[in-house]
Amino acid sequence: MLIRSASIIRNGSLLKNIDILIEGNRISEVGRDLRPNDDEIIDARNMLAVPGLVNSHTHLAMTLLRGYADDMELIPWLQEKIWPLEARLKPSDVRAGVKLGCLELIRFGVTCYNDMYYFMDETAAATREMGIRGVLSGVLFDMRPEFINDVEPFIKKWRDDDLIKPAVGPHAVYTCSEETLLRAKDIAERYDVKIHIHLSETRDEVDTFVNQRHMSPVEYLENLGFLSERVVAAHCVWLTPRDIRILAERHVNVAHCPISNLKLASGIAPVATLIEHGVNVCLGTDGASSNNNLDIFEEMKVAAVVQKCSVGRSAILPADAVWRMATENAYKAFSLDMGIRRGALADLALINMRRPWFIPVTSMISHLVYSMSGEASYTICNGRVLMRDGVIEGEAKILDEAQRCYERLISEE
Amino acid sequence: MLIRSASIIRNGSLLKNIDILIEGNRISEVGRDLRPNDDEIIDARNMLAVPGLVNSHTHLAMTLLRGYADDMELIPWLQEKIWPLEARLKPSDVRAGVKLGCLELIRFGVTCYNDMYYFMDETAAATREMGIRGVLSGVLFDMRPEFINDVEPFIKKWRDDDLIKPAVGPHAVYTCSEETLLRAKDIAERYDVKIHIHLSETRDEVDTFVNQRHMSPVEYLENLGFLSERVVAAHCVWLTPRDIRILAERHVNVAHCPISNLKLASGIAPVATLIEHGVNVCLGTDGASSNNNLDIFEEMKVAAVVQKCSVGRSAILPADAVWRMATENAYKAFSLDMGIRRGALADLALINMRRPWFIPVTSMISHLVYSMSGEASYTICNGRVLMRDGVIEGEAKILDEAQRCYERLISEE
Repeated sequence: MLIRSASIIRNGSLLKNIDILIEGNRISEVGRDLRPNDDEIIDARNMLAVPGLVNSHTHLAMTLLRGYADDMELIPWLQEKIWPLEARLKPSDVRAGVKLGCLELIRFGVTCYNDMYYFMDETAAATREMGIRGVLSGVLFDMRPEFINDVEPFIKKWRDDDLIKPAVGPHAVYTCSEETLLRAKDIAERYDVKIHIHLSETRDEVDTFVNQRHMSPVEYLENLGFLSERVVAAHCVWLTPRDIRILAERHVNVAHCPISNLKLASGIAPVATLIEHGVNVCLGTDGASSNNNLDIFEEMKVAAVVQKCSVGRSAILPADAVWRMATENAYKAFSLDMGIRRGALADLALINMRRPWFIPVTSMISHLVYSMSGEASYTICNGRVLMRDGVIEGEAKILDEAQRCYERLISEE
Repeated sequence: MLIRSASIIRNGSLLKNIDILIEGNRISEVGRDLRPNDDEIIDARNMLAVPGLVNSHTHLAMTLLRGYADDMELIPWLQEKIWPLEARLKPSDVRAGVKLGCLELIRFGVTCYNDMYYFMDETAAATREMGIRGVLSGVLFDMRPEFINDVEPFIKKWRDDDLIKPAVGPHAVYTCSEETLLRAKDIAERYDVKIHIHLSETRDEVDTFVNQRHMSPVEYLENLGFLSERVVAAHCVWLTPRDIRILAERHVNVAHCPISNLKLASGIAPVATLIEHGVNVCLGTDGASSNNNLDIFEEMKVAAVVQKCSVGRSAILPADAVWRMATENAYKAFSLDMGIRRGALADLALINMRRPWFIPVTSMISHLVYSMSGEASYTICNGRVLMRDGVIEGEAKILDEAQRCYERLISEE
């Protein structure tokens, strides 16, 4: 496949008329006037080629719950709405929700997402079918101790897949015992997979933990020997200076989810300080039931502007730092060999630059972070075109199936 | 013109298969199975018809400066970048910037905007040409005392126009003398037009004012007898409880601009408290140089989620309250007879509901505020179709002209 005459960003500048040659699932060449290797040629004049974006924390099946319950306080929202509905979820609902979520990810140029939820076999199969990458972990908590038995079979089944990266997902320190956390860590180390955990999301959760244990959740995990570069910790809103130093020292990856944190009134994570201390910060949308979409571009913009106001300095967290959170930092966190360069995985998006929000052509990174609205035109993952000029095959059926599943779920209320 | 088989929102519910008949610049009927009155029939199956949105505070010509300078502190940003470039602006640049901005407004279903800037005759002519409504005021400040001489001729020239509402735009209390403010008020009253002013945007500005005058900017304007339902005050970030009571008592309209306030690290306006006190709060993007787009849907989402976090309650400022800020509240502020109802101005947008972010179909108001991504499909203003199935006539030429103007402006640096 040849992508012809695209624009790319190199060291902050826009280079035009760049060809990108794809062989199998890799980029085999990036340069000018390349010769096509087969009949598949994409005319990318006026298009910006960017490497695939990564959504570093979500619960994709929850896309099915979009708009089901909004503008409620956290506890009644969970107890009265989300949990009862989740208890009625069937595997077919999860498939439908994941596919609906994948449609959205593909539209926003996301080629990899990091997920924690139920029915991970279904999630993996649906993700494969949709053609994007998933780092997938079945949620573990002590209320359902049997879940941990599924972890090793799930890893064994999927570890050789080229799109699915199985992982281990202990929910959080307040829902998992020390034993569960240590077993999760042990499995992750034995199979060399990632660990996905929620960490210090709300003030209440942290205060309660500190009152009981006389240490912060981060200190607790540090004492357990749980923390490493294998860990992707979602949220990290309520951190002490000591917590931040520990996360940096242990090379923990943080998945910042600003919109969900704002919408649930959880708080604003100290992202600028984390980055200053060398922590690898990525970006996630969280589930669509607390966002309510999976628009990673919107997430970048909100991350930047909210942090500026929170710190009180408009120069903080500039566009390129936020862009890295959705790309390079995530590639590092999930060990993805990605980028617009020879040898990298052929995961990329083509974005139409002839839209009002990209004019005038000034800093394209600034435009991607602050101005971009809507969707990519093409999304390619693992060498396969998943969206072509805005069209994703089978989309209408997926929308209908999601609607059907949702209607059944609420009819059972 | 007949819009056939649209969906509309009534009392929070979705009604399907609704026809909307347009005669001249008004909606003449809303109902089922209406007969077309001419050849123009728009098939709106799967489309949601919403009344035109309003951007209540912007500087549209500044769309030309999008991405020119980002991630800087406020004072160097203004002094080193924005003001020197603005000093080189020609009337033709303003025309190009306004048209570029109108493209964006039309794409987001905005049919009216409230503007304050230079070269308002050019702005009015470009806005008319693009076909949307503008409430337009030439900026007044004491550094350029001659500007006030243009106000009355501008009002007289445009006051009978069906799209342009001329207004008076004293910049702010710290840039306009008492005399200028009172002259502006007097002109506005004599011609019965709106007053557009910046109010209490940054903490520094308010602190400095309070130190000098021993009262807040709002108290000062109250003492001058300046405040009334005629006034649209942009920002209102730094208010005392007394300020809020005054704004409510005087029926002042507030244009909340959350993204610009965050990006420039100005702060978070107490919108929930303002609404609680009965203040009419509208929504604006501010200029594209501090946003950096004109996406009113993004602005709604940010307004809601940021306020929830700022107040610490996720139930505060629910979706329907934010939706009103971009519609009904603005219709009231700008005396616009709008809505999807018989007799109203034919200003509306049609939004494709067969997109992943509108599935499942739950609360459409929630989807419009929290999930919507990208653009409307049709935008109609004053009975004229400005965007048809995503196409705006002449768009390419406007993009090219804006790019040319921008390149000339920076070549003169």
